[in-house]
Amino acid sequence: MIRAAARRLSGRVRHTPLLSSPVLDQIAGRRVLVKPECLQHTGSFKYRGGLSAVSALPDTVRARGVLAYSSGNHAQGVARAAAEHGVPAVIVMPCDAPALKLANTRALGAEVITYDRPGGENREAIGEALAEERGLTLIRPYDAPEVIAGQGTAGLEIAADVAALGIETADVLICCGGGGLTSGVALALEAEAPGLRARPVEPEGFDDVVRSLVSHRIERNESRARSICDAIETPAPGELTFPIMDRLCGPGLTVTDDEALAAMALAFRDLKIVLEPGGAVSLAAALGRPDAIPGDAVVVLASGGNVDPALFARALGTLT
Amino acid sequence: MIRAAARRLSGRVRHTPLLSSPVLDQIAGRRVLVKPECLQHTGSFKYRGGLSAVSALPDTVRARGVLAYSSGNHAQGVARAAAEHGVPAVIVMPCDAPALKLANTRALGAEVITYDRPGGENREAIGEALAEERGLTLIRPYDAPEVIAGQGTAGLEIAADVAALGIETADVLICCGGGGLTSGVALALEAEAPGLRARPVEPEGFDDVVRSLVSHRIERNESRARSICDAIETPAPGELTFPIMDRLCGPGLTVTDDEALAAMALAFRDLKIVLEPGGAVSLAAALGRPDAIPGDAVVVLASGGNVDPALFARALGTLT
Repeated sequence: MIRAAARRLSGRVRHTPLLSSPVLDQIAGRRVLVKPECLQHTGSFKYRGGLSAVSALPDTVRARGVLAYSSGNHAQGVARAAAEHGVPAVIVMPCDAPALKLANTRALGAEVITYDRPGGENREAIGEALAEERGLTLIRPYDAPEVIAGQGTAGLEIAADVAALGIETADVLICCGGGGLTSGVALALEAEAPGLRARPVEPEGFDDVVRSLVSHRIERNESRARSICDAIETPAPGELTFPIMDRLCGPGLTVTDDEALAAMALAFRDLKIVLEPGGAVSLAAALGRPDAIPGDAVVVLASGGNVDPALFARALGTLT
Repeated sequence: MIRAAARRLSGRVRHTPLLSSPVLDQIAGRRVLVKPECLQHTGSFKYRGGLSAVSALPDTVRARGVLAYSSGNHAQGVARAAAEHGVPAVIVMPCDAPALKLANTRALGAEVITYDRPGGENREAIGEALAEERGLTLIRPYDAPEVIAGQGTAGLEIAADVAALGIETADVLICCGGGGLTSGVALALEAEAPGLRARPVEPEGFDDVVRSLVSHRIERNESRARSICDAIETPAPGELTFPIMDRLCGPGLTVTDDEALAAMALAFRDLKIVLEPGGAVSLAAALGRPDAIPGDAVVVLASGGNVDPALFARALGTLT
């Protein structure tokens, strides 16, 4: 399915490069290869899964339109995929999502319906009800085979590009919310680069996947706390994604919000890319957890860059 | 020479992609294809010319070391090229160069010698005297054939990547200081993509190349003013670069410092890349001078991203 998705996505999705900097290598104590999915269309890897899912629908089903719920990156990915296919998209987003994500989703032509997060409304229930009412196909953010397959195309690129550098074994650190990207990349690496090991990275307080990989069952985040890593604030690993991660992934890692901000600042200074907090936790782990990572090289999947200017300016303030 | 440089640089220089965003297309009124040389090693295209020149030296000459004068990007390009060849590099920089550029040049192992710009010291005289005294080879920032050839490799990439998109004619807007990049790219396009036309872009007050292309002789900047575009604050086009530009380039364009800042902010928001002011003037022209540009598509060579955090935060402040 991942290879089939790659064929459908060919020429539309960007094959993102592997970036590096001697300064980051020095901080991490090993070679750091950063795959900047912030440079992907819509500013995150989510366009891969969105386009995979929308392009896989039967024509008559797709023509009725699609619906997604999302804090903003899946929203844009699905909105762009729908726009490219000329079909309507309805996106359910929290009213306090980053302003940039709300604006971009609307700019891509989607109808945005906001809900009030503190009121405790359930975005999945809202989405499912709306989809049924309007005859739209729900594109789930991670627990959907075609979405996982689309995200997995990033893993095919990693396998090819890391092999071209002559590297056979390395950990691949992946920003993890519900596990769509992590499970997709893990499957791609299993097939194409068995010496590369996928490992999820989460923010403190949202370490559901990290804990689930320890207990080998789905653990939920009890916390009602918030993180600045809005892109990966999910309550629990997915029913489809977790068994894949449990079978294939190495131990997860957690980082603090402050570490994510510092990683954003170093990505600005040394790689010249814009990362959002949830897209920088993998880099934060590579730089801040050297003793938890084996080998001479580490691959970092930096998953997105849709960040409001004020928060980015705050990250820049961490540079001395 | 450009093709020979491309062979020497192969596998060391990054082939940077062409980025785009529907939002930028809408602002510009045409398709905008941005080549982000900020993602090049050392954060600017200057590594191409530095590596081309250093790698072309005879072994015995190179072993004695190299010297460059630069506000910071050529400095880093030559410093990295020298470090990769294991030879010493001495870099002459103004004491008020951006802190990031001074620090990065030192981090690459170069000996940095600063001079006091307001005192009116001539960096070329300082550089030539030092080179002779220590037996170092001076790598000029633009008026040197191997440097021009190295910068021209960016033009070979543009020719190939634009053709792959099915685009045959377009202007290629290029951030222009002394003209090394502009002339090198113009030569590459002449050979490989004659439908693409190189056009220099300069900041107001430093429009020596723009005026020289009108008068067909080398014009100097009389202004002692300063711009935030430190990378491209040169007094006049080069003796070698100007005849090439005069023969091959379309009319030049100028933008204000404020337009450069606004372009940096849009590159942050819509492309997720970090540009410095002098690396953003080409994008500023594409977005702000639509009536001066023909056709359905424009190529923008965004030349560098070595910018201090405070100035970048100022650019972010232009986003409403």
